[in-house]
Amino acid sequence: MAGGDELKLLGFWGSPFVLRARLALSFKGLSYEYVEEDLKNKSQLLLQSNPVHKKVPVLIHNGKPVCETKIIMQYLDEVYGPSLLPADPYDRAMARFWAAYIDDKLLGSLMMMSMGKTDEEKAEGRKQSSDAVETLERALKECSKGKPFFGGDSVGYVDVVLGGFVAWVHLIDRLTGLNVFDSSKTPLLAAWLESFGSLDAAMAVMPDVQRLVELSAR
Amino acid sequence: MAGGDELKLLGFWGSPFVLRARLALSFKGLSYEYVEEDLKNKSQLLLQSNPVHKKVPVLIHNGKPVCETKIIMQYLDEVYGPSLLPADPYDRAMARFWAAYIDDKLLGSLMMMSMGKTDEEKAEGRKQSSDAVETLERALKECSKGKPFFGGDSVGYVDVVLGGFVAWVHLIDRLTGLNVFDSSKTPLLAAWLESFGSLDAAMAVMPDVQRLVELSAR
Repeated sequence: MAGGDELKLLGFWGSPFVLRARLALSFKGLSYEYVEEDLKNKSQLLLQSNPVHKKVPVLIHNGKPVCETKIIMQYLDEVYGPSLLPADPYDRAMARFWAAYIDDKLLGSLMMMSMGKTDEEKAEGRKQSSDAVETLERALKECSKGKPFFGGDSVGYVDVVLGGFVAWVHLIDRLTGLNVFDSSKTPLLAAWLESFGSLDAAMAVMPDVQRLVELSAR
Repeated sequence: MAGGDELKLLGFWGSPFVLRARLALSFKGLSYEYVEEDLKNKSQLLLQSNPVHKKVPVLIHNGKPVCETKIIMQYLDEVYGPSLLPADPYDRAMARFWAAYIDDKLLGSLMMMSMGKTDEEKAEGRKQSSDAVETLERALKECSKGKPFFGGDSVGYVDVVLGGFVAWVHLIDRLTGLNVFDSSKTPLLAAWLESFGSLDAAMAVMPDVQRLVELSAR
C-alpha cells in the first residue's frame, strides 16, 4: 500500500455487498478503517459520500468516495495489486459475466426462495435457484480447470463476488432445511463453499451465521 | 485492428443494448460483420454463443463469444484502443458508477413512464425519470468540465452507455409529447443529445426513430 494512503470503508455488518468489499480488501492485505453505519440513522459522512444512493458500501480513498460493491472491487484492482480479475481480456470478460450472473440470477432466485410471499413464489424460487446453482457449477468447472477456485489456485473476482454470499447461503440452508450448494448435485460448489469459508482472509471478515439468523428474524 | 482478427456482432436493430455495442465498435473504427437476429427464431449461433441468457448482443471475436453490452464495451476497451473508459482509476470508477445509474435508475423510470400499466404508474415514472435526468445533468456537469461529453472533448464510456438510448429518448418524446432532456431544465443534457446524435460514428449506426415508433406500436 502506498505510503500515506488512507482507506476507510463505510459498511453494515449484515450486508453481503459490504462483505464483498471487505473480502477484496482482506485478500489484498490492505489495512483500512471500518466504520459501521446505523442504517436507520445514516451518518453525514455516508450521505455526503453517496448522495445519489445513500447506501453502503462506500470506500473512501484519501477523502474521495467510491460507491457500489463491484465498482469498489475493480477500483481496488486498478489501484492496488494483485488483481482479482484475471490478466487476459477474454478471461476478464468471462469473470465479469459470471459476477453479473451471480447478482442477477442466483441472488434473485435465492431471495425469491427464502422470502417469497406465497408458497408458489417460494417453489418457483427453489426451481430457479436450483437451475442457477447448476449453471454456476458448470461455470466453476470451466473457470477453475480442476483447481478449487473460479480464479484457479487462488481466489479471484468471481470468488469474492460469490464469497459475499457464503454466510447467507448457510443462513438460507438453516432457514429452509435445504442445501443450496448440495454436494450430491453440485459437488464443486459444495467443495468451494468449504474451501472459501476456511481461508484466513475470508474468516477474518465473515459475519456469524447465528447473528444473521437473529437479524433475519427481526 | 490486429491482422487476421475476426469480429462478428449478433444483434437486433431495435435493441438499445445492441446499439451500445455498435456505437463502441463504431467509435473505435473497428470493422465487423453484423448479423441481424430474428428474436422469435434465434439462430443456432446465438443459442450456442450465449447459452445462459440466449440474448443479443453477442460479440464473437475469433470464434470466442462475449456477452452483455457493458462487458462487450470493456472487452473492446481492453483489446483495442483507444479506451472509452478514462485512464485514471478514480475517473474509471465514476464512469462505471454513472453507467450503472443510467441502467438502473434512468432506464427503469423511463420504462415506467412510457409503458406503465396505470396512470398512477406513468405519473410515478414521470416523477422518477425527471429526478434521474436532473441527477444525470449534475453528473454531466461534473464529468465534462465544460466540454460537450461525459468523456470531455471526446466520447467516453458513459457517453456510449447513454448514447444507446438516444433514439429511444426521441421515441419517448414523440409518444408522450414531453421532452425527456428538456433544454430549459437540463440544458447540458439537451445539448449533449444534439452533439452526440450528430457525430458521424453515431449516425452511422443509429436506428430510425420512425421505425422505432412502428416497432413500439406492434
